Amino acid sequence: MAGSTFGERLKMTTFGESHGEAVGVILEGVTPGVELDEAYIQIQMDRRRPGQSSVTTPRKEYDKIRIVSGLFEGKTTGTPLCIMLNNTDMRPSAYDTIKSAYRPGHADFTYEKKYGIRDYRGSGRASGRETAARVAAGAVARRLLERRGVSILAYTTEIGGIRCEQFDVDAIERNAVRACDPEAAVRMIERIERLAEEGDSCGGIVECRISGIAAGLGEPVFDKLDAELAKAMLSVGAIKGIEFGTGFQAASMRGSEHNDQMDAEGFRTNHAGGIIGGISTGADIVFRVVVKPTSSISIPQRTVDVEGNEREIETIGRHDPCICPRVVPVIEAMACMVIEDHYKRQAALHDE
Amino acid sequence: MAGSTFGERLKMTTFGESHGEAVGVILEGVTPGVELDEAYIQIQMDRRRPGQSSVTTPRKEYDKIRIVSGLFEGKTTGTPLCIMLNNTDMRPSAYDTIKSAYRPGHADFTYEKKYGIRDYRGSGRASGRETAARVAAGAVARRLLERRGVSILAYTTEIGGIRCEQFDVDAIERNAVRACDPEAAVRMIERIERLAEEGDSCGGIVECRISGIAAGLGEPVFDKLDAELAKAMLSVGAIKGIEFGTGFQAASMRGSEHNDQMDAEGFRTNHAGGIIGGISTGADIVFRVVVKPTSSISIPQRTVDVEGNEREIETIGRHDPCICPRVVPVIEAMACMVIEDHYKRQAALHDE
Amino acid sequence: MAGSTFGERLKMTTFGESHGEAVGVILEGVTPGVELDEAYIQIQMDRRRPGQSSVTTPRKEYDKIRIVSGLFEGKTTGTPLCIMLNNTDMRPSAYDTIKSAYRPGHADFTYEKKYGIRDYRGSGRASGRETAARVAAGAVARRLLERRGVSILAYTTEIGGIRCEQFDVDAIERNAVRACDPEAAVRMIERIERLAEEGDSCGGIVECRISGIAAGLGEPVFDKLDAELAKAMLSVGAIKGIEFGTGFQAASMRGSEHNDQMDAEGFRTNHAGGIIGGISTGADIVFRVVVKPTSSISIPQRTVDVEGNEREIETIGRHDPCICPRVVPVIEAMACMVIEDHYKRQAALHDE
Amino acid sequence: MAGSTFGERLKMTTFGESHGEAVGVILEGVTPGVELDEAYIQIQMDRRRPGQSSVTTPRKEYDKIRIVSGLFEGKTTGTPLCIMLNNTDMRPSAYDTIKSAYRPGHADFTYEKKYGIRDYRGSGRASGRETAARVAAGAVARRLLERRGVSILAYTTEIGGIRCEQFDVDAIERNAVRACDPEAAVRMIERIERLAEEGDSCGGIVECRISGIAAGLGEPVFDKLDAELAKAMLSVGAIKGIEFGTGFQAASMRGSEHNDQMDAEGFRTNHAGGIIGGISTGADIVFRVVVKPTSSISIPQRTVDVEGNEREIETIGRHDPCICPRVVPVIEAMACMVIEDHYKRQAALHDE
Repeated sequence: MAGSTFGERLKMTTFGESHGEAVGVILEGVTPGVELDEAYIQIQMDRRRPGQSSVTTPRKEYDKIRIVSGLFEGKTTGTPLCIMLNNTDMRPSAYDTIKSAYRPGHADFTYEKKYGIRDYRGSGRASGRETAARVAAGAVARRLLERRGVSILAYTTEIGGIRCEQFDVDAIERNAVRACDPEAAVRMIERIERLAEEGDSCGGIVECRISGIAAGLGEPVFDKLDAELAKAMLSVGAIKGIEFGTGFQAASMRGSEHNDQMDAEGFRTNHAGGIIGGISTGADIVFRVVVKPTSSISIPQRTVDVEGNEREIETIGRHDPCICPRVVPVIEAMACMVIEDHYKRQAALHDE
Repeated sequence: MAGSTFGERLKMTTFGESHGEAVGVILEGVTPGVELDEAYIQIQMDRRRPGQSSVTTPRKEYDKIRIVSGLFEGKTTGTPLCIMLNNTDMRPSAYDTIKSAYRPGHADFTYEKKYGIRDYRGSGRASGRETAARVAAGAVARRLLERRGVSILAYTTEIGGIRCEQFDVDAIERNAVRACDPEAAVRMIERIERLAEEGDSCGGIVECRISGIAAGLGEPVFDKLDAELAKAMLSVGAIKGIEFGTGFQAASMRGSEHNDQMDAEGFRTNHAGGIIGGISTGADIVFRVVVKPTSSISIPQRTVDVEGNEREIETIGRHDPCICPRVVPVIEAMACMVIEDHYKRQAALHDE
Repeated sequence: MAGSTFGERLKMTTFGESHGEAVGVILEGVTPGVELDEAYIQIQMDRRRPGQSSVTTPRKEYDKIRIVSGLFEGKTTGTPLCIMLNNTDMRPSAYDTIKSAYRPGHADFTYEKKYGIRDYRGSGRASGRETAARVAAGAVARRLLERRGVSILAYTTEIGGIRCEQFDVDAIERNAVRACDPEAAVRMIERIERLAEEGDSCGGIVECRISGIAAGLGEPVFDKLDAELAKAMLSVGAIKGIEFGTGFQAASMRGSEHNDQMDAEGFRTNHAGGIIGGISTGADIVFRVVVKPTSSISIPQRTVDVEGNEREIETIGRHDPCICPRVVPVIEAMACMVIEDHYKRQAALHDE
Repeated sequence: MAGSTFGERLKMTTFGESHGEAVGVILEGVTPGVELDEAYIQIQMDRRRPGQSSVTTPRKEYDKIRIVSGLFEGKTTGTPLCIMLNNTDMRPSAYDTIKSAYRPGHADFTYEKKYGIRDYRGSGRASGRETAARVAAGAVARRLLERRGVSILAYTTEIGGIRCEQFDVDAIERNAVRACDPEAAVRMIERIERLAEEGDSCGGIVECRISGIAAGLGEPVFDKLDAELAKAMLSVGAIKGIEFGTGFQAASMRGSEHNDQMDAEGFRTNHAGGIIGGISTGADIVFRVVVKPTSSISIPQRTVDVEGNEREIETIGRHDPCICPRVVPVIEAMACMVIEDHYKRQAALHDE
């Protein structure tokens, strides 16, 4: 495949550039006869859209989605579901500097090397705007998972060096950074606002927990469930790493500590993060991803122009000083796609 | 696909259980007319095989490969290359306890949940032995990459809490743990030997560096080069996490620190690890993976039998107390497969 | 894949129902930097659209396409090209009878069996309207093939028992049935008009010729070039068979007659239809497909309703009494997709 | 994929050249826990192997298969099933002439154009021997279909201009050409024997009937069941065309004749051949394929050598003067693969 398609039995193909007419997604393999409406999807879109708070960009993209195909009389038909979002509030003028020079941390240089041509308007296809289409598709997958009793929840655990000390599930959607610790959230927001004033940005960590999942999902050997989740998460532009369960701490653990022993009630610990041998154990799947600091900053940086001449560049325009809060729904969406796809793959294996 | 196939234009399909007749791999899409012989592949097999030193299992699997198809008069034909390794030194008797109970940390429980049937002999398909087939395929990909001037090198940077303080490329293949720091290697080996005496095991970290790679490789948006590498690495049983460039450290960095600025010579830093927007920058690709402690330990652990009754289990048989040294060639093999595949995908995009 | 995606390196995914908001296609893997505009694509759309003559349905679907993504400043960017066509002139009222009963020859019954739900408006996803999206994608593939000097031409050779006796390439687009014999075309049109008066329909045969193609295209063993073309053609609803070169006549030929012998100028005959062992010989690829009579007729037919009760049905609404002329551009479009995809696959095999 | 893999949820990858060590197949996605043994598969192998009668080549390839992986204690494990056949009775000496010149009707020329290198021994990968691996995989698919009550039967209906006038299912395996008409079979055999004496060959037609299939199988729009069967059949080297139901006759039929009307008992006719809109109707699926005359004949033919010089060639060695009887089990095997795969795909769509 050419890289814009993800999944096997539940398969999405996204399209669109940030400053084209629209972005959208085609979702194939949707279970037919399932009740669905635009409002259900819009809830997730609104969690990702900008302008939600002081720490996110004020750009007005309402991300109002519409279902173009695959729905009939309020139910899925099993045919491709096309969901589109028109682009609004485009100001090409704000992006003139990008045309001639490569912004540090952005895909300007690499896209030009890959394609020999580049839609420089707002990063074109490389824009985070593409993830809006993923959130729309993920919302449909979430709808299918609901019927299975699977729930997927992501939240910020660290921003700019500030870590959450507690897990308060109710706090997550009540603070601007979607942190699981309301006190830490206050300090995270202060940190982000100070950096924003300096024209700088910061990174963070987002954790995701998948509950109510069946044991036995995942395809050895290459399509292990953790391998597929890793690909899904690293396919999100700002993500630079992922770890499952105890993750990198396992490097300094002994086998006698790390192994999850069992008793009649099931697993006594979950160091594996819910996946062993690439297959779900039935315990919660837990992983963390690292979110790099937003590349767009207004502090002058050194770069080269398209002719290779050295120059300075300041990214003007409005950007999120920390994208953790807006990445949370994207992480959830990708996880929903992977898990529902593997339920369908398991159904194909045991088919009677 | 059903999970035993990896890659698009260079595609491998592995097969075989640890105690069946053989394990092997079918490699499709190999560039025709390339000189290749079994000896070239055997070099890599010998780096993965057990019994190389005091810190690896003494089992005698010579892993002697043979090319069954796809080669003619010393050259690849472009048709599927089948490479097989017969299994030797199988002692089913040594695995009787596995039949009735689930070993903590192993895929015994999850395989049974997935398939409803389990080849318990030496973990069957879930055995690390399957990676021997990957190393054989990776050696062919390495041969193709040589012609492009791409080199891929992996090495241990941490074992059981002991970290490498220096990078000595010549030291890597000269110490039993394939560490890049010969002094650290000595302490790592001592640590492993002491744990082995206790019947325990430990984890570690392996770093991989890809040099001489062209800029422009990788397929946005889902098949980003880092996303594909992440899937490839997490598909290795013992790997529980991956990070690129500065990785998880990015969580506490500022954009002004993390962005790789450019000058006329190119990138001044490489915090991105050679990949931006999912596409190679031309700088070295650098990533690290965490290797969990070997699950097979001879310390008694709590588990349940197939009827769900609680019991104790001790994994007898011979196992690596730390698999980092033998994982190194597997990591390299998977990286070779991903990179060569993306060179071919890029060729298909620009096809004249 | 879930069936709405076709191709490997040049890949299209179509979406949309005949009476939804729109139909469209996402085209992945398009060579970047190629000049393209909507007018170029519209030319092919206009060849497929209804209302072109007395023998096609008078429905007014102008099939005006628009490029939603993947194009920048008049050139392809290599990112997904989305092309959409809004649906117009929808008259759900005209399709009420379909709701309750299954039309003979239509996919009403089979869709209900497959999905358990059915968008009955104008056949929904099963409508021939879906092929408009294919023609749009095929036009882009045609643009890429032009640069290679490959031309693809289809034409009617038989309708309702009337056969073409001569091949006049200039006549094809000058007669309403796109026949290669202008005299036969006159009789074909008379035949169709008479059947239309009777409320009946008829089938025919369309031949396709691919010229200027390189030798060596096609992937043994399963993705043979003829196998891929066969799948592409049979994926068009009305096509019930395909034959290459001498086709079914080969059943009564001897090897000494059928074998294409060679001399210094190349192949002396082309009984194979330009493909031997699944790979192009460099000679013209020639195949024929049979087009079934249009299923929608206004003659009363026996069927059952959704409760299984027997009843009579007359398909009202406006339909083509013979779809050969409108199938011609669809056949060409699918052939363009297959051939360009295989050029790209060959480029990936020989990649330096 | 690179062309040696077929199927989605039940997926086979074949490998091997006719004069290499072995040919074989990897079958992924096999339902676990199904009883299977080598004897069951061998039955189908014996139907394809040469030397069965006076009309097939006397070469002794016993085609004794062995299951290398994926089977445990007599049951499938759900992991890749590897089935191998060693090559025997190889006489490279008999193929020296092939080395320097291109045999008319063979893939010698096209393989050299595609790969730039050619394993000329017995056609290498292009040999009909590759189909032995398909028959082995098809036997496993047949085993899975048995449990669904689906049966697949192919038989010769025409050879060298002689047509079957009756359908006697019991006669098929009792005559050397696997014809459904015992009287016609006698004349077909005489015809073949006479042509063999002349050093010539002939073609024929094979029909396949799939019974007991569920309604609702097939994936619109590109993976229509007939499209997938067409690809499967055209992927068999000697097949040059396929038609479903009334096939090419539909070109001269009226819609009122061709439409299959329904009553309370179901479809009153089956002109569609059991597939409408690409989805199974539940009626028998019926299709016919045309088999070209065997390319290997001992009559002198004109060709060119690898330097392009004109010369004469006589294919020595032992070959089937008509391959219809041996193609029958290959057609069945490919049909089994397609149908079982689509049952699994349907299971993934409706997954609860």
